[in-house]
Amino acid sequence: MDKSGDLSQKMYLYHMIKLVILGAGNVATHLFKAFQETKNVEVCQVYNHREGALHAFHGKTQTTTSLQELVEADIYLISVKDDVVQTLAEKIPFQNKLIVHTSGSLPLLKTGSKNGVLYPLQTFSKEIEVDSDTISFCLEASDKDSYHQLDFLAKQVSPKVFSISTNQRKSLHLAAVFACNFVNYMYQVGEKICEENAVPFRILHGLMEETLRKGISNSPRTVQTGPAIRKDYSTINRHLEQLHDAQDKEIYTLISEGIIKNNL
Amino acid sequence: MDKSGDLSQKMYLYHMIKLVILGAGNVATHLFKAFQETKNVEVCQVYNHREGALHAFHGKTQTTTSLQELVEADIYLISVKDDVVQTLAEKIPFQNKLIVHTSGSLPLLKTGSKNGVLYPLQTFSKEIEVDSDTISFCLEASDKDSYHQLDFLAKQVSPKVFSISTNQRKSLHLAAVFACNFVNYMYQVGEKICEENAVPFRILHGLMEETLRKGISNSPRTVQTGPAIRKDYSTINRHLEQLHDAQDKEIYTLISEGIIKNNL
Repeated sequence: MDKSGDLSQKMYLYHMIKLVILGAGNVATHLFKAFQETKNVEVCQVYNHREGALHAFHGKTQTTTSLQELVEADIYLISVKDDVVQTLAEKIPFQNKLIVHTSGSLPLLKTGSKNGVLYPLQTFSKEIEVDSDTISFCLEASDKDSYHQLDFLAKQVSPKVFSISTNQRKSLHLAAVFACNFVNYMYQVGEKICEENAVPFRILHGLMEETLRKGISNSPRTVQTGPAIRKDYSTINRHLEQLHDAQDKEIYTLISEGIIKNNL
Repeated sequence: MDKSGDLSQKMYLYHMIKLVILGAGNVATHLFKAFQETKNVEVCQVYNHREGALHAFHGKTQTTTSLQELVEADIYLISVKDDVVQTLAEKIPFQNKLIVHTSGSLPLLKTGSKNGVLYPLQTFSKEIEVDSDTISFCLEASDKDSYHQLDFLAKQVSPKVFSISTNQRKSLHLAAVFACNFVNYMYQVGEKICEENAVPFRILHGLMEETLRKGISNSPRTVQTGPAIRKDYSTINRHLEQLHDAQDKEIYTLISEGIIKNNL
């Protein structure tokens, strides 16, 4: 059989993927919404060990708190805390199904059956809608067939699908802490300084937008500006005097040193 | 005379502002380009103490390295290093002209004549074009007339014009270091981690965009995600093991502590 025939047959096989989601947190909820809007994926069931978190899914799909009641499906997508993923995977009462987790940190599951990883690289907040095609899906699988199935699944909701090894995924997870969580904390400190001085934070929005635009269309290293890169110590010292929170001072000093050291 | 009559008369007076720019660095160059594109501002001359930096302006406007050759204008806009602004202002050989600096840190000039501040809050890199209406202009002036003139000048290039006191401006300048320079450094560390693990940095772009979108449409404090806000110490410790640069470890620890402490 030639390759294209092989692929088109697979496309046919996957034309409707039956999916069960295990977990009801931020990531599970956002993925549920994304997959529910596609033609080729049927989210048959959402499992969670506590009933409370399942309320949000009532009327949208079948829900259960019992692993014994799990329905048969093509893919079981586990999106729970890292430390219970493996245990949960082992309790799924079906053989030869593709079992997938969504963790940025865990290796492939240690199960006999086909398994994989579908790590959605994005920041998910409970109340904030996310456009699913902004999500980078980082995929890994135990075998080629499973990979193709995951690839088909992910591409139903986003064009940004990447084959990423466990180590690469771990490094992306770490890089994301800097490029997202720590960036947001820098915004937060900026906002606090504005509030303390009765300045509307929105005055900074254009600057934040331009910083992103430059950081995306260039290597961030090449577009740094500000007192540290200019080694403008008189401004740096004045800024340190302005800050009255000891931790903010420490952050200011440490990052300024980083900018000076790494941009020589 | 009623207020509107007074205002429309001023509009008439300012219908063509003659501007001299002193300085030829990043900010001066970007402001020159922005003002040159407007109908109501004529950049008559650019002064710089060194000839080299003036080459970029040749053929576009008159240039000089001599303060004695400064032409007469309505506004003299000084955009040079903070420590020489006041000295330069005192050497302008005209009386009763509006003299303005662009510094985020300096107070109003100590001159007998009308003076003011036009602080363009934006990140300017030499080779990167900036859409001038993304610039927040923070204005301050010694008197009402000067303020109105500056307001008219700024509004030729951006709708984002704010009346900002010296102290507010200093705090904005400091907040901008966090929300721009330090954000860019977080991008830089993220990019470095990707490069070290042969992962394309662009996989993170969607996440960076969403982080900005959330930080602008909400208070950043309310939309934090990641291991620190979840107090997920096992992930935090694993991340610290992954980092091999001592300074990156220190930054990771310090900012994680900040997130935990300030989001209780």
